[in-house]
Amino acid sequence: MRRFIILGHTAAVDPEFTLNDLPGSAGRLDVLCRCVNSALLLSHGIREDTEIHLILQDRYTIRITGDEVQYLNPDERSTGALLQKALEKKEVTDVTEEQVSTPGIYIREQGFADVLDQIPGTVLQLHEDGEPVVDVDLPNDPVFVLSDHQDFTEEEQALLQDHADQRVRLGPQRLHADQAITVVHNAVDTDGFSSY
Amino acid sequence: MRRFIILGHTAAVDPEFTLNDLPGSAGRLDVLCRCVNSALLLSHGIREDTEIHLILQDRYTIRITGDEVQYLNPDERSTGALLQKALEKKEVTDVTEEQVSTPGIYIREQGFADVLDQIPGTVLQLHEDGEPVVDVDLPNDPVFVLSDHQDFTEEEQALLQDHADQRVRLGPQRLHADQAITVVHNAVDTDGFSSY
Repeated sequence: MRRFIILGHTAAVDPEFTLNDLPGSAGRLDVLCRCVNSALLLSHGIREDTEIHLILQDRYTIRITGDEVQYLNPDERSTGALLQKALEKKEVTDVTEEQVSTPGIYIREQGFADVLDQIPGTVLQLHEDGEPVVDVDLPNDPVFVLSDHQDFTEEEQALLQDHADQRVRLGPQRLHADQAITVVHNAVDTDGFSSY
Repeated sequence: MRRFIILGHTAAVDPEFTLNDLPGSAGRLDVLCRCVNSALLLSHGIREDTEIHLILQDRYTIRITGDEVQYLNPDERSTGALLQKALEKKEVTDVTEEQVSTPGIYIREQGFADVLDQIPGTVLQLHEDGEPVVDVDLPNDPVFVLSDHQDFTEEEQALLQDHADQRVRLGPQRLHADQAITVVHNAVDTDGFSSY
């Protein structure tokens, strides 16, 4: 299983936002929508071996699993609607334990430290001083941690330092989180194939 | 210069669509918006060495250049608004010659055959039977041709066959066009670096 953790520093936790303004009133939720697309969608297919954890303001975590998710389309607006529905769920239900919103989409009151503690697999930090991803022997159950449009905070970096088993880099350019996910997937897809 | 040509088979050519429904009333214009993002945007930056040509229904071509473009944001809706503005331009101006819409965004009455004839650089076809992109010595001015959510038509494939100098593949998975652009950029970014 491939797992991605995305830190949404400013993402709305209140479902009262308009889908017409994901970058504004929803606190750059557009960034997270694009990450969901990159993590889970293929051309005419879904990556069933992948799971993404969106951590909103270090307070709530929305988990989406490729093997269960339904109603997921590639455009930002429809993904934004699914995330909004998950946020509505927590308004009417206790989410100290994880609760399902729509099929394959779960929400829970949980911050970054707890997600890192509980997630199975080997945590890899994407870092410009890391080893080129193509040179790395990737683990079976990699967990990649990315930040949204903002850099990791010092506290988040310290947590990562404690949990990450390895640092990898993707290339000389600084990519958006969703672009980085796409490159990571491609690296894992082609890993171990001398000619893929 | 890196160039991308994207075939938008169903994309709206009439600007009378709502930004609230890019996948529907705008004929999957969301696909092209994501391609613009992948082609031109970096985290906190623009790929100034890149140009994208969006061919709408084989009738109009919107060209966006990284070194000139302004007002470009990563979310689909704001990119959709820029494309809509370009389509409005052709309603009030003769576009048999290329005309500027907003800075760095041009529109012209031009189909795929003419774009292929006139574009500078070496045309590379992305094809599942091609050579792995990491094994290819990439040319200085590559032109990558991709299709939207639909496959190339037979006529388009025949045109490509005539113009493409090489076929390359990106990996074992079938990616969305915007994801493919991201992988291609990464391949070019890291090409020639033994350790990038």
